[in-house]
Amino acid sequence: MELSELPTPALVAERSALDHNIAAMAARRPGAELRPHVKAFKCTKLAARLADAGHRTFCAATIREIEGLAAAGLGEDVLLANEVLDCTRLGALIRAGTADVTVAVDSQATIDAAARGGVGRVLIDVNIGLPRCGCDPADAGRLAERARAAGLHVAGVMGYEGHLVGRPERAERRDGLGESLPLLRRAWDEVGGDVCSGGGTGTYDLNDLVTEVQAGSYVLMDTAYAQLGLPFREGLGVLATVVSVGRSRGRTYGVADAGLKCFGMDHGNPGLDGAKVWFCSDEHTTFAADPETGGVDPLVGDRVRLRPAHIDPTIACHEVLWLVDGDDVVDRWEIDLRGW
Amino acid sequence: MELSELPTPALVAERSALDHNIAAMAARRPGAELRPHVKAFKCTKLAARLADAGHRTFCAATIREIEGLAAAGLGEDVLLANEVLDCTRLGALIRAGTADVTVAVDSQATIDAAARGGVGRVLIDVNIGLPRCGCDPADAGRLAERARAAGLHVAGVMGYEGHLVGRPERAERRDGLGESLPLLRRAWDEVGGDVCSGGGTGTYDLNDLVTEVQAGSYVLMDTAYAQLGLPFREGLGVLATVVSVGRSRGRTYGVADAGLKCFGMDHGNPGLDGAKVWFCSDEHTTFAADPETGGVDPLVGDRVRLRPAHIDPTIACHEVLWLVDGDDVVDRWEIDLRGW
Repeated sequence: MELSELPTPALVAERSALDHNIAAMAARRPGAELRPHVKAFKCTKLAARLADAGHRTFCAATIREIEGLAAAGLGEDVLLANEVLDCTRLGALIRAGTADVTVAVDSQATIDAAARGGVGRVLIDVNIGLPRCGCDPADAGRLAERARAAGLHVAGVMGYEGHLVGRPERAERRDGLGESLPLLRRAWDEVGGDVCSGGGTGTYDLNDLVTEVQAGSYVLMDTAYAQLGLPFREGLGVLATVVSVGRSRGRTYGVADAGLKCFGMDHGNPGLDGAKVWFCSDEHTTFAADPETGGVDPLVGDRVRLRPAHIDPTIACHEVLWLVDGDDVVDRWEIDLRGW
Repeated sequence: MELSELPTPALVAERSALDHNIAAMAARRPGAELRPHVKAFKCTKLAARLADAGHRTFCAATIREIEGLAAAGLGEDVLLANEVLDCTRLGALIRAGTADVTVAVDSQATIDAAARGGVGRVLIDVNIGLPRCGCDPADAGRLAERARAAGLHVAGVMGYEGHLVGRPERAERRDGLGESLPLLRRAWDEVGGDVCSGGGTGTYDLNDLVTEVQAGSYVLMDTAYAQLGLPFREGLGVLATVVSVGRSRGRTYGVADAGLKCFGMDHGNPGLDGAKVWFCSDEHTTFAADPETGGVDPLVGDRVRLRPAHIDPTIACHEVLWLVDGDDVVDRWEIDLRGW
């Protein structure tokens, strides 16, 4: 199928960018040194590409993601890098033999949930600066003891520098790690185990402590990560059709048929080459040409490719990701890990 | 089922608020004076409630929404209140006899699409101040002639004051309509036809020109519309579980298991009674108690109900809406109109 035949709005991924990004990461973090985070793309077909590139261990943010990986035959070593109070569904996968699951814990309640649910292996999740999940580093050793007392195998620690991964300057990210990683190092020493899991797209080559990097956004990137000077290419777009044009305050604007229901908006409006986006509404993006960057006034029927500001919640809006190569649509991948 | 048994995150709607809102709107805009906009809630079970309350005409923003209404037996009079360049799927519904469809047009291209696709009835969409779809009011009469020349029945006009519906002060909304409605009035005079369609939740009782109001958000509201002093109650929530607590800068915070993938974020963070939301990430909302409004520090295992800032893109994130009555879950409604 040709790209011009795709009904819009359509989530598209440029194959060349995907291939480039996978290769670039695999060169620096080969095999199990990368634990790809499927929360970024929620697609087992894409995960299978990563497995083909040597990464067969995955991490996830939801139980549904783990279930989907297991159903796709990708459950041989999966980490739920998140806290949950009910591990029943994870335990069922383990008993069925379709997934080998580790879960993050940061409290007595999450330890109890793992033990009760039949998940035998945990990482102690340590807060290293982001006020989200993770225990106080000083509590990590004690929690590990409690987990062992509950009959769990403590494989090591996890600590995610989510407050640093998006900082635009490399030096800022590096300096931030200089404060965060010693916290994780100390916790790991007290916890023991072989695994130290953490990191992300913004710190994949700066975090020299972790034994495995939990990156996902690098596969297709977004306009926010594109500011960081990383060796990964933006490859994700939402293809849209200009369904209306008008004039406002002396300017011609176009209205594309992709809006709030197509994009994660927490990082702001999508980008559009040669244009300035004015605003998004439920099913529309209103934009005007930016002559300074080579833009020309839109016409009804034009096709535009909007570049999402945040990959994870954008992909989660869509049922399907179309893999494209220039003007050709080369594959159709279901976004099959949505929901909870 | 009891509310406490629902796995989280879960989209919930308070039945009492829904019933109140439906009754309040039906009292002011009974029957076909309201054309409920399904884009707000994307759920045929909820649409069926509106039909039971006397509103059997619907409008939609996507073809998929129209297809879903038709499949649910709610297609007797549906308006695609949006511009599309391919009406093939709408024409198929008409030929199958499952939906009677009108479509908005604002250009020669959209007129051609309606004629080509087999949609015989159109409204001329007029721009009355929002730079989105809609023709220049001065072009409306000429477009109507062209539509008739293409063999279409022109039922009237449509004009949406989307730039006004969210203004917090009633007087601002009323004054804005004082500028916008004369544009629509003049266009309607030139176009002819019985229908003048427009309005929304914020102007449902202020817009005295339209023959039918296109409101949808009123059914369950959101924190943005709740600022407007309307007689509709907030009834939508995302139920979440506190999966972690921590301390940061001398404050205790809680981490609830609902984040960016649960909420339309364009209007900002969700609200939480008795608390201040710090930030949302993909699957989490970090918040702290606000003692001034009666909040107490969260504990792991607490359940919280986050109030979305924007109903439409929030509901579109979910597969299911749970109808609740206090502590009881009374129904499970699929969000079956998602996608395109």
